[in-house]
Amino acid sequence: MDRLKKMFDTHPAPASGAGDTALAGVTAAVECSLVCTTCADACLSEGADMAECVRLNLDCAEICGAVARMLARPGHQDRETLDRLLAACIRACRACAEECERHAESMEHCRICAESCRRCAEACEEMEGALVA
Amino acid sequence: MDRLKKMFDTHPAPASGAGDTALAGVTAAVECSLVCTTCADACLSEGADMAECVRLNLDCAEICGAVARMLARPGHQDRETLDRLLAACIRACRACAEECERHAESMEHCRICAESCRRCAEACEEMEGALVA
Amino acid sequence: MDRLKKMFDTHPAPASGAGDTALAGVTAAVECSLVCTTCADACLSEGADMAECVRLNLDCAEICGAVARMLARPGHQDRETLDRLLAACIRACRACAEECERHAESMEHCRICAESCRRCAEACEEMEGALVA
Amino acid sequence: MDRLKKMFDTHPAPASGAGDTALAGVTAAVECSLVCTTCADACLSEGADMAECVRLNLDCAEICGAVARMLARPGHQDRETLDRLLAACIRACRACAEECERHAESMEHCRICAESCRRCAEACEEMEGALVA
Repeated sequence: MDRLKKMFDTHPAPASGAGDTALAGVTAAVECSLVCTTCADACLSEGADMAECVRLNLDCAEICGAVARMLARPGHQDRETLDRLLAACIRACRACAEECERHAESMEHCRICAESCRRCAEACEEMEGALVA
Repeated sequence: MDRLKKMFDTHPAPASGAGDTALAGVTAAVECSLVCTTCADACLSEGADMAECVRLNLDCAEICGAVARMLARPGHQDRETLDRLLAACIRACRACAEECERHAESMEHCRICAESCRRCAEACEEMEGALVA
Repeated sequence: MDRLKKMFDTHPAPASGAGDTALAGVTAAVECSLVCTTCADACLSEGADMAECVRLNLDCAEICGAVARMLARPGHQDRETLDRLLAACIRACRACAEECERHAESMEHCRICAESCRRCAEACEEMEGALVA
Repeated sequence: MDRLKKMFDTHPAPASGAGDTALAGVTAAVECSLVCTTCADACLSEGADMAECVRLNLDCAEICGAVARMLARPGHQDRETLDRLLAACIRACRACAEECERHAESMEHCRICAESCRRCAEACEEMEGALVA
């Protein structure tokens, strides 16, 4: 994501001073979005019934992707919309992490996915803090 | 969206009884998502500086799209995640509608887009109500 | 999708005269995208192993969504990019339809989904024809 | 993207041996998708008329995003669909790179974006090669 950092640095009119926090947020969100996409796919190859895990993975992938794309537009922030979207993302990440943690001992992909969800929830909380400041 | 209605009717295990409200929600959200996409594109062809409107259109398109896809998975609902995502969508729709209404007299596409955003916000509120019930 | 039609009619500078065909394309693609999303979710609730069907549904939902959003920007068309994306969509729709048809007798959601995929492939072919003209 | 690499390594049933190439493809595609999203936003803050550049950025962001998500599901590959989607992505990346290069001297964000698009086109070509092999 080196080029994305440079993009943020050269943006002609960023709306806030939250650039570094936003960059950390995009990075965590986009990783989590893809990790959840892969986890859903991996779960489909397990013999066990992983329907609930697949669904939470898909929700989380969806919302993390939306967060990443919204944070990747630093020229404007409707703070209230972003706040609410971050709140949705934090919840989706935690719900997915909890479900994945139930399978973490037997399925390494779920263990890593839970880790990625926890990291993304943290990054969203840091972003919330930066918006308040 | 006749086929989507049939899909909802034949789903083997919907998570809630909110089927018709959810279907109305998907329909309003997906229309709003595409209308906002077209409005952003139309705004780019106007001579005036429409940057703010384009940005709110893109945010709204993004979040409405996420709502539509999440509601299109009736087999499961993490109610809290959905609630928060609907709250983000309602706010994004209203912010976009307000901006579009400022241009509605001179730009017909903004007038229609504002209408679509107001309708989507309503449908999301009805969905919120159905979740509480 | 009445409002989307009005958006197309009031766009200040559409790039081509393919407006009605493009509108039919968006409509078919967005329906197929959501129908495939619901079919994947429904398949997860079936007892049988539907992993292959879920995967083809997710691919098809993804590409149909991209087609819908690209066609919803009538102000510009890089014809070659659009042509190639339509080709990918036609293939994804057919692959998904074939798999869904295998389950159509026992699962009504797969029967409807196959129908939606066939319709979307047709609409993409009509759009390809309109681009050549 | 360290966690995504681990996800690929622990997937129970990858469809092909193209894991490392696919991982490089996801990484390049997702970076390009976000860089194009930021470039569109930055272009909206420039005084000049950048409508064409914004549109090509949005197309490229869209298609690169679809490629990233499809490659992030290693459990299955409909080779023909993937091939066609990669072809669309290569074209979208090149069209966007060409437009951005026209502004590269005066706008650093366009210079970096063009670089990201060229890298993504290369990664897609490498992926095409890995599919043939």
